[in-house]
Amino acid sequence: MKGKNMASWIWYHGDFEIYQAMKQNFDREERGMNWPAYWYTSGWNHNVYFWKEFQFDHAQTFSTIIQGKGYGKLINLEDSQETKFILGSQMTCPAGHFRIEIYVGNLSGLPCAFIEGKEIYSDHSWKASNFLGDDVIAGTSQFFTNSKQNPMHFEYSHKIQNAKRIEIVNGGTLLDFGHDLTAKTMIQFFEQFQMMVLCYGESRTEALDVADAYLKHEIRMHDDPDGSYDESTKTFTTKLRAFRYIYVPDISSLDDIGTIFVNFEFVKFPKIGAFESHDSKLNQIWRVSDRTLRLCSGIFFIDGIKRDRWVWAGDAFQCFYMNRYDFFDKEIVERTVLGLRGELDIKQHLDTIVDYSMYWLISIELYYETFADKTFVEAVYPKMKQLIDFSLEATDKLGFIHERKGDWIYIDWADFDHEGALCAEQMVLARALQSVIKISKLLNQDAQEYEATYQRLRVNIDKYFWDEGKQAYIDSYESGKRHVTRHANIFAILFDYVDEKRTQTIVKKVLRNPLIATINTPYFKFWELEALAKVGSYQDVLDTIKAYWGGMLDNGATTFWEYFDPKEKGAARYAMYGDKYGKSLCHAWGASPIYLIGRYLVGLRPTQAGYKTFEIEPQLSLLGDFNAKFPLSEKGDYVSLESKNKYLLIQATKKGGTLLVQDKQITIPTDHQLKLSFNDLY
Amino acid sequence: MKGKNMASWIWYHGDFEIYQAMKQNFDREERGMNWPAYWYTSGWNHNVYFWKEFQFDHAQTFSTIIQGKGYGKLINLEDSQETKFILGSQMTCPAGHFRIEIYVGNLSGLPCAFIEGKEIYSDHSWKASNFLGDDVIAGTSQFFTNSKQNPMHFEYSHKIQNAKRIEIVNGGTLLDFGHDLTAKTMIQFFEQFQMMVLCYGESRTEALDVADAYLKHEIRMHDDPDGSYDESTKTFTTKLRAFRYIYVPDISSLDDIGTIFVNFEFVKFPKIGAFESHDSKLNQIWRVSDRTLRLCSGIFFIDGIKRDRWVWAGDAFQCFYMNRYDFFDKEIVERTVLGLRGELDIKQHLDTIVDYSMYWLISIELYYETFADKTFVEAVYPKMKQLIDFSLEATDKLGFIHERKGDWIYIDWADFDHEGALCAEQMVLARALQSVIKISKLLNQDAQEYEATYQRLRVNIDKYFWDEGKQAYIDSYESGKRHVTRHANIFAILFDYVDEKRTQTIVKKVLRNPLIATINTPYFKFWELEALAKVGSYQDVLDTIKAYWGGMLDNGATTFWEYFDPKEKGAARYAMYGDKYGKSLCHAWGASPIYLIGRYLVGLRPTQAGYKTFEIEPQLSLLGDFNAKFPLSEKGDYVSLESKNKYLLIQATKKGGTLLVQDKQITIPTDHQLKLSFNDLY
Repeated sequence: MKGKNMASWIWYHGDFEIYQAMKQNFDREERGMNWPAYWYTSGWNHNVYFWKEFQFDHAQTFSTIIQGKGYGKLINLEDSQETKFILGSQMTCPAGHFRIEIYVGNLSGLPCAFIEGKEIYSDHSWKASNFLGDDVIAGTSQFFTNSKQNPMHFEYSHKIQNAKRIEIVNGGTLLDFGHDLTAKTMIQFFEQFQMMVLCYGESRTEALDVADAYLKHEIRMHDDPDGSYDESTKTFTTKLRAFRYIYVPDISSLDDIGTIFVNFEFVKFPKIGAFESHDSKLNQIWRVSDRTLRLCSGIFFIDGIKRDRWVWAGDAFQCFYMNRYDFFDKEIVERTVLGLRGELDIKQHLDTIVDYSMYWLISIELYYETFADKTFVEAVYPKMKQLIDFSLEATDKLGFIHERKGDWIYIDWADFDHEGALCAEQMVLARALQSVIKISKLLNQDAQEYEATYQRLRVNIDKYFWDEGKQAYIDSYESGKRHVTRHANIFAILFDYVDEKRTQTIVKKVLRNPLIATINTPYFKFWELEALAKVGSYQDVLDTIKAYWGGMLDNGATTFWEYFDPKEKGAARYAMYGDKYGKSLCHAWGASPIYLIGRYLVGLRPTQAGYKTFEIEPQLSLLGDFNAKFPLSEKGDYVSLESKNKYLLIQATKKGGTLLVQDKQITIPTDHQLKLSFNDLY
Repeated sequence: MKGKNMASWIWYHGDFEIYQAMKQNFDREERGMNWPAYWYTSGWNHNVYFWKEFQFDHAQTFSTIIQGKGYGKLINLEDSQETKFILGSQMTCPAGHFRIEIYVGNLSGLPCAFIEGKEIYSDHSWKASNFLGDDVIAGTSQFFTNSKQNPMHFEYSHKIQNAKRIEIVNGGTLLDFGHDLTAKTMIQFFEQFQMMVLCYGESRTEALDVADAYLKHEIRMHDDPDGSYDESTKTFTTKLRAFRYIYVPDISSLDDIGTIFVNFEFVKFPKIGAFESHDSKLNQIWRVSDRTLRLCSGIFFIDGIKRDRWVWAGDAFQCFYMNRYDFFDKEIVERTVLGLRGELDIKQHLDTIVDYSMYWLISIELYYETFADKTFVEAVYPKMKQLIDFSLEATDKLGFIHERKGDWIYIDWADFDHEGALCAEQMVLARALQSVIKISKLLNQDAQEYEATYQRLRVNIDKYFWDEGKQAYIDSYESGKRHVTRHANIFAILFDYVDEKRTQTIVKKVLRNPLIATINTPYFKFWELEALAKVGSYQDVLDTIKAYWGGMLDNGATTFWEYFDPKEKGAARYAMYGDKYGKSLCHAWGASPIYLIGRYLVGLRPTQAGYKTFEIEPQLSLLGDFNAKFPLSEKGDYVSLESKNKYLLIQATKKGGTLLVQDKQITIPTDHQLKLSFNDLY
């Protein structure tokens, strides 16, 4: 936790995240190739200044370190006298009313400053200007509070890990680290450097497939582009890669050569969310989900750790939900929101995907609901407005959004009828408009036009896409095919766009209709299970979690996958996108049981922004005996509950909690553990 | 000159210039401070790809070097099969119809590529994409045609120079290099490193003023932020600075210590323009102008070499004119145009100045008139359109342009009546619209709206700003003061916005009216003298050149100054902007005699784009005996003429020339020197 007047590195709000997101999105590797993300990459401001006004009775000293080139300016606000000063050494601000300005230009990196002094120090109370329009608040990070740091180099945590198991296979050595890791491989040679090949694999099959492994490294002592050799310690260190296995072909014994270990690189997040029950399979699903989510959570929520390592708004959106039931980290959400969105002027949908832009807009509402931080929402509002306006430019006279050149209407990997406007896309547009309206009102901004747009869109969705005969929303009203997929119908339930009667119809005619194509991605299974939970089908949610995620465990998963089809066997399980090892075996969206368990089975949800009030409605009979603990704030607050032998014990570290069981509403105590007998509850 | 299939480094068109312009605009130093330019600094694309289609009967090999991270893709256009490939090593494109794509992301610098092969090699015939909208042509430079180069490091020429004169003053050593230079200072120690202070000065006064010199360096052996010491050669090399003098205080003899010399850094431009007459003062003015212009011409036309070292559109605009009569370099104009304008989306007027945006627009017409390169004009047209549209957004219902927040309506350092719309600004807006219309028509783009806007503006300028009583254009029609300055009236003549009668009236009532405040900057003296030349007052032009620029020579100038007031004496001559040494003594706009002599006294001008036809109308009686040579193309063509003993000798290396003397029109020969007797001419 930060002290009250601890200095932070400051930058133009959002630019640290743009810089780091670009670095992240340029970090993909495939078979010796670097693969920068295939979309427009937003730049950051290279030339900025920071300013703050001070009023002192006594002179104050301070010193300023910057990344870049620049100078300082001290402006006496009483006589407008300006004094320029050199940065790097100590400066004195006399008594009086002054404005301090720190100018920083950085050609190759992020212009940022660190100002240290008793009363004058850099933090989020400073303003930043890029010499255009409105100044913004300075951006900060809890990771950068030391003058010796450079915000261009993220402060990761590291841990040396040895292989959990070493095996000799086909005359080579196979190291198994137990589960996926993102790490630098280190080879400490006993006597002297020796050429060797490292074949990486998320699966054993991949690592042993020397010809086709996705990541392979023929290490060279000198001029190795992907690693370096330190003569003094006789240690070769590779670049960062994600894997569970390393196979060293042709070396059947490392004993005379050296030791191979890895330097695991990660961002430490608090351990708050916990779940354990009498059901060991469910417990394992929780643990593996938690591991998967943590591995995919670094500077940003990324999609997967081996491939793509990119920041995708759809994947991140689901992580925002999971985060609430696991580590409740505020800054990773802010970083991901800002990194995804880029500079103020929008030029392309996020990751080129129209629905991803919509999720980003909704995520601001979600952010506020989670953290109730109005300052951040205010800072990001201009970017929100530009994005919705940019999106609405592509709507027709009915209010339906269409693909422009270069846009991608995605929704899911599914067989949609894409002719003309797609219903599911209109649903997410409507939902995004609701978020824009909500946030606009929160910030006392006029939202009338957005409201009118939203109302008209809702009316037209029902008018054009609802099929009375099929009792379902159809993909396209223009093609005449009147094709039904689950997606729009799931959204209609999730977004409360249908009344009780129509909800039940949809459940029957679509969700429980085997003739409607099934959902094939864990990504959309998230929404489908949420819709089922919403209509009270908790048993379905539990069963599906155990069957689908449990099925991955049965297939040897130690982290959850991007895609799982129980019918696939052998090496085929690892293939995707036409690539033998194209499937990510540690994929953020595979971790959704965290959310589904926390939100629906244990049943925690905020009822006021920032969990000022919250409800918990556990499915006691469904879960049987269990222990659970979920965060309530980024400060470490939590609610814990235990269900054991027909008793429920519950306590929170924070007021505002209500336990719901049957029709009962019971205040959750903060000063003692409440013990309730099921006999009294039911 | 480039060979026919010589490979070039390629980048997203305009981005090399944006990158280098940022570097340039961050290069200012003042008393130990770095001073990045105080405006919004456009970024470049960090993530791009280059592509070209090929059709071959035989397989072709090629290899690709990039700056950044990326990969290649070979797409068979017959079967759409895609093959990704690693860059850096040789690749084969089979026979058939293929598209090659090279993907490059660069976090910290300019993504660019160099592709070498017999038939497959990078040049301006490749296209570049930033994953948005329309692809652009690849940018290239004649300076980057070698795989070993890095376009982020400009290829300067260097020359070691010794002081022309060494003097002992006040116990220190003063080195005089004869005139301003931009150079790294090198100190080669005989025995060992010795701490010393270097005080730089454009003037002797400044260098000797150890306390207040603008540039000073206390050299340190280790960790010197502004230089480095090479132990092996015992040589200390400083960063680049501009100066004529170096003073080393407290060291009265360097004999036992070492040698100080400088490494002059410059961009080599051809020596084509030349002028020499019987008038030695005028000759010296030409030579010093030429030196001044060359010193201020690097990657870009910058304003001045000591201070600011920034790219200013107003200053550069005048250099574009001078360039035509001196080295006729095409690429420096292109670089400056692109560096000034920045990325496609415009966010702020160039250098924040509204009139500078207008000059930039006019400069595209000037560029085309000079070089007739439609490809470049086409490439820059979208940026032209965005800039005029951005500008017109700030016009009122009469069509007059106003200042928005952060805009600067500059025109000149003069006492304008700034209430409401300023007349001179409307004149340059009208002129800029004419350029936009002209270029739009050249490119077969619709210009009807711009034409209507222009016509209305012209009518309203005359309606609102022409004062019948004063017979002059007034600054403001809104203030009621009806104040007259020269500026708008000069523009009216220059832009042909007044008929013969009104022109004569303006000359009498404004230009020759001592009650109207005089022009105080060489910058606007350029336009004033041009207006006088336009009305045939060549004698005035010559007299003013000799008095004003000759006056600087009399004050010891060896390069021309930013500002010259003959009344200032002593150290006061070097002060400006409230700084003792704030005045630039080597300032591009001081070099305008090159243009005034070439364009009006010798009288050369193109009459068709690219000098396809040109006229020369020398002021023979005014100049007396002289030799002159001026470029006609970037390929080295020129026209030369000599006036001697009442004979005129003239010849050109290029057809299309017409000599005008009195009412006579004489074709300028290319195969022999034409000799004409004044008796026949007059």
